Amino acid sequence: MHRSMAILGTKWKPIIIYALRERKARFGQLHAAIGTISKKVLTDMLKELEADHILLRQEFKELPPRVEYSLTPKGKALIPIMLDLVKWDNSYYEYDKSGHPAKAVTG
Amino acid sequence: MHRSMAILGTKWKPIIIYALRERKARFGQLHAAIGTISKKVLTDMLKELEADHILLRQEFKELPPRVEYSLTPKGKALIPIMLDLVKWDNSYYEYDKSGHPAKAVTG
Repeated sequence: MHRSMAILGTKWKPIIIYALRERKARFGQLHAAIGTISKKVLTDMLKELEADHILLRQEFKELPPRVEYSLTPKGKALIPIMLDLVKWDNSYYEYDKSGHPAKAVTG
Repeated sequence: MHRSMAILGTKWKPIIIYALRERKARFGQLHAAIGTISKKVLTDMLKELEADHILLRQEFKELPPRVEYSLTPKGKALIPIMLDLVKWDNSYYEYDKSGHPAKAVTG
């Protein structure tokens, strides 16, 4: 639990993973897709995700050099769990907003 | 995604939720079960989880007063997702440790 939350436990990492769910992307494409993240923070997050084997960074020796990021199988396996989390959040969000008191689960 | 990670996105909250998965607990019991958390941090986390409708705090007017924490239906609904996250982490942990290079998922 400690470990998996440490991997995911920032605002940005799930957003980066989600942005790569269906396609590879170059740094500039990712940065444009995510919008409000700084280049410095995006660079740091990409390095950490690569170190955690969630992303693969591929460098192509072209001129100008091209770098592409994609999800590894481990990263791909996170997607359905993240979608469950979004579903969970959405399904309770309106309920919470309505001021309906939360009920205890007994037993 | 922002919102659900903001709710979960600390080291401690998933551990607190998990500790309450099968039973109510008083503050002292939670503190003992979790071990390394400070009382100040545990107090703050419990307040935030209550505000997010994940925990219910029940006060019993006894002498000495008794306070019990339990999961709401929203909190209970998080448990299977958290278990999936643990399973995900465990299934790739040994693989990563072996130094096996992560492979890209193409297509």
